[in-house]
Amino acid sequence: METIKQKYLTNTWYVAALSTDLDGETLFKRTLLETPVVMYRKDDGTPVALHDRCPHRFVPLSMGRRDGDQVVCAYHGLAFDCSGRCTRNPHGNGKIPAAAAVRTYPLIERHGFLWIWMGDAPADESALPDYSRLDEGHANGIAHTYMKRPCHYELITDNVMDLSHVDHLHGEIITTRGQLSPQVPKLNEVDGAVGVRWEWEQTPPILIFNDFLPEPGKTARHFLEVTWTAPTNIQLTIGATQDPAAPLALDSTIGQYDLHACTPENEDSTHYFFATRRNHHEQDGEFNRMKIAGMHAAFADEDGPILDAVHQNMGTTDFLSLNPVLISSDLGPVRVRRLLRQRIDAEQAAAATPPSGRPALVQAG
Amino acid sequence: METIKQKYLTNTWYVAALSTDLDGETLFKRTLLETPVVMYRKDDGTPVALHDRCPHRFVPLSMGRRDGDQVVCAYHGLAFDCSGRCTRNPHGNGKIPAAAAVRTYPLIERHGFLWIWMGDAPADESALPDYSRLDEGHANGIAHTYMKRPCHYELITDNVMDLSHVDHLHGEIITTRGQLSPQVPKLNEVDGAVGVRWEWEQTPPILIFNDFLPEPGKTARHFLEVTWTAPTNIQLTIGATQDPAAPLALDSTIGQYDLHACTPENEDSTHYFFATRRNHHEQDGEFNRMKIAGMHAAFADEDGPILDAVHQNMGTTDFLSLNPVLISSDLGPVRVRRLLRQRIDAEQAAAATPPSGRPALVQAG
Amino acid sequence: METIKQKYLTNTWYVAALSTDLDGETLFKRTLLETPVVMYRKDDGTPVALHDRCPHRFVPLSMGRRDGDQVVCAYHGLAFDCSGRCTRNPHGNGKIPAAAAVRTYPLIERHGFLWIWMGDAPADESALPDYSRLDEGHANGIAHTYMKRPCHYELITDNVMDLSHVDHLHGEIITTRGQLSPQVPKLNEVDGAVGVRWEWEQTPPILIFNDFLPEPGKTARHFLEVTWTAPTNIQLTIGATQDPAAPLALDSTIGQYDLHACTPENEDSTHYFFATRRNHHEQDGEFNRMKIAGMHAAFADEDGPILDAVHQNMGTTDFLSLNPVLISSDLGPVRVRRLLRQRIDAEQAAAATPPSGRPALVQAG
Repeated sequence: METIKQKYLTNTWYVAALSTDLDGETLFKRTLLETPVVMYRKDDGTPVALHDRCPHRFVPLSMGRRDGDQVVCAYHGLAFDCSGRCTRNPHGNGKIPAAAAVRTYPLIERHGFLWIWMGDAPADESALPDYSRLDEGHANGIAHTYMKRPCHYELITDNVMDLSHVDHLHGEIITTRGQLSPQVPKLNEVDGAVGVRWEWEQTPPILIFNDFLPEPGKTARHFLEVTWTAPTNIQLTIGATQDPAAPLALDSTIGQYDLHACTPENEDSTHYFFATRRNHHEQDGEFNRMKIAGMHAAFADEDGPILDAVHQNMGTTDFLSLNPVLISSDLGPVRVRRLLRQRIDAEQAAAATPPSGRPALVQAG
Repeated sequence: METIKQKYLTNTWYVAALSTDLDGETLFKRTLLETPVVMYRKDDGTPVALHDRCPHRFVPLSMGRRDGDQVVCAYHGLAFDCSGRCTRNPHGNGKIPAAAAVRTYPLIERHGFLWIWMGDAPADESALPDYSRLDEGHANGIAHTYMKRPCHYELITDNVMDLSHVDHLHGEIITTRGQLSPQVPKLNEVDGAVGVRWEWEQTPPILIFNDFLPEPGKTARHFLEVTWTAPTNIQLTIGATQDPAAPLALDSTIGQYDLHACTPENEDSTHYFFATRRNHHEQDGEFNRMKIAGMHAAFADEDGPILDAVHQNMGTTDFLSLNPVLISSDLGPVRVRRLLRQRIDAEQAAAATPPSGRPALVQAG
Repeated sequence: METIKQKYLTNTWYVAALSTDLDGETLFKRTLLETPVVMYRKDDGTPVALHDRCPHRFVPLSMGRRDGDQVVCAYHGLAFDCSGRCTRNPHGNGKIPAAAAVRTYPLIERHGFLWIWMGDAPADESALPDYSRLDEGHANGIAHTYMKRPCHYELITDNVMDLSHVDHLHGEIITTRGQLSPQVPKLNEVDGAVGVRWEWEQTPPILIFNDFLPEPGKTARHFLEVTWTAPTNIQLTIGATQDPAAPLALDSTIGQYDLHACTPENEDSTHYFFATRRNHHEQDGEFNRMKIAGMHAAFADEDGPILDAVHQNMGTTDFLSLNPVLISSDLGPVRVRRLLRQRIDAEQAAAATPPSGRPALVQAG
């Protein structure tokens, strides 16, 4: 029998939802890694995630109702608490079958997102990356958004890890006047994180920052850095300065600190989450709304259609198997693809070798 | 070679259409058990069913036209009579090829439905269940309806065989005030038919009958009985009485006599047929229309979405393979699933052993 | 390993587009034989065709832009010339990877159509059939049209090769008053071309020609001839005359000279191209528009729905495997199916035997 390659890394944290997706009432339903999940907040605000499938007749629990911190199945009234334990069976003698339990998933709220652990290994909170820079500053200086795209999630990771496309695909607002593409970006790999950094000068400065610089229209030095960590998190920082002495870093430039995170719905569809924190003009709520709307639109109207078309044109999720012609800017994304594949293969191998040392059957992801 | 499990029982009667679906003219097209079928009435009113596929170029005959009791193919004018024999070839010398025949299916009209026999064994009219109680009474005391649902047909059978869901899924109109669920229903199996019966008291009585009882709002005794026969027919009787001496049976209660019947279009879609005959307020045509509209809506808006979601969530048609956590009310539906599987397996085995005793190739259903 | 049957003849000319589909600017995208193709005109008007897939990240080039005669990929700005060679890489040191090339396809403009060669063998311009009769006459005497149908392309070839259906499927406008069906058409096979010819008398004449004959409404002699050449071209000539001495040929009758050509998008969808040239009332542009609109509608509303339904009803693309009941008028279409299959099998066998005589792996089409 041929071993089926595991599709997704599972012993890791994925963004499952925006914090704002869960109010106090809603049973929020979303398919993650091909698994239906229902999420809601307990009365004390703690978010929880359960397999969205009653173990009795497989009805989505999200079609049911809340009863305090419990969820009640719409079909036969079985109730489950947040540990997944069945707490009420209104049928017959009311005895609760021993197997009547729903799988729960560790869910942590951080940086305006809910992070879920779908794998079988114990959830490792220390593995959750720290993006607390998103939390620092005025409430009108940060915004989040979400969109769903009909493409494989690694195509989105590729897109953000290779920013040389900005001068070709995107419009005037984030053009670098051709300064980015000619650079062979610097790759930096530390502890499984992959960083790519560009630095350049342009005149006028990148338009998103131009008005906030001391001398709009005059030359400024810029930097852009993306850092990927498994499975699909990319932290992007970009900044510009006209001070010749200023280090090219967020705190000494006009800049912003973003997070891009993708979660596969399945191999053909991806949940794409995004947050952006800027260090200028922080208190202007209207500007904040306009800024996130613009960034959302750029992806929805410019990157998105390209990636969807690539997904269709590839006919496979294995980019490298198609022998792509690689260029300098692919250094980062290709390294990321290889590292992710190593991580998935390692997870699959570990699952095939149980603690006793006796090899188990390999499972598809 | 692996034997493919037969999907459907075929040597049996399925409801193919409502009597009213066939007027005197229409070529009525429907896919049953993955097979396109065309049905129409002969000039004398007799309904007939043919494979909806001309043997020449495989055009649906339902795209053609009637010529008396014959059907003429739209593409090349070949005509077929109700026995499926080609009676006219307007081409060349007009000779009719020996093989030019369309398969016909036995079709019987009974109780406002048309029943079809799709299997290869000779149709056995005595195997048609007798629901003549539907025919007894005023014309305004009976109504029929039909809907198509995107779920496997056995999920609908499960739903009707396990009525403990009424207090959880449905609204005020048919609530038993929680009296039904705590009961372990009585299972009764006779000659391959599976019956489940509940009896209870409630105050006020079930709302569909309350106004027709001597003392609306006061306690009444109720009964509810469902009887399944293969492949998918469920006869349901429900009644209520406030007479302490009255037997809990249709003729001595305010009640109704219903038939639920399902026919697979394919594994992901089901034709659902329903008839209801009541024994009270029989002559009121407006009430009759309102009643059937309400019952149609209850299924379309409440059961239907649940069953469609279960079908999606299961990802298989084999419910028991998913190790469901069973409760007391599953006794009936699970017994029905097992009996139906036995019948299908027996049919498959019989098809594999032709009369001569020589084993034949097993066919997929 | 089982050899997969090649689906399409590839070393041959297919119509890819109407001449008018390509203006001077557009990057015209179409999927042909399951392959995405982009077509455009060079500044000098020459039409070119490239694989619609950048070799870098597989973006459709049709999403990009023209730069003179070159096409620039929308995603990263790589430019390709009409030979498929990458001419500009704006990234890193600008070096162009040796493998950076797009496959091009020979494309010839003839008779108002663009003809493409998709196969691996060298394009053979002499194999392009000569339909120059389409080009002779007034510009208002010819019209072209296109439609896409969700059916297998051979069903369309069948339809045109067997015109006995006109009296059954089509309306008054092209009825032969039943004269066509009773004929056993003459089959004529020369050099791999298959011709079928009918001759008959009818009163009144076929309505499309009636008004142009000397005595409208009076008996006329008619002929109709279709000639298929691989892969899917059918030239149809039809004419009528009331001169007893006139030969039944286009130049001595009131008639028209048409071309039907199909190109598979895939096994379930076909590009259908059509041109018609008449020899009467040639200068009337309004009549020309009305005539092509009528012919387009006849196919779209009458033949099309039948062929789509046949495609669904067959559940396979291999018509003959279903043991159709054949009639006299199938002589032509069945002969064409067999010849095409022979051509495809021969192409597959040749691909499996490379020049050196060493057998290669057989590829799917």
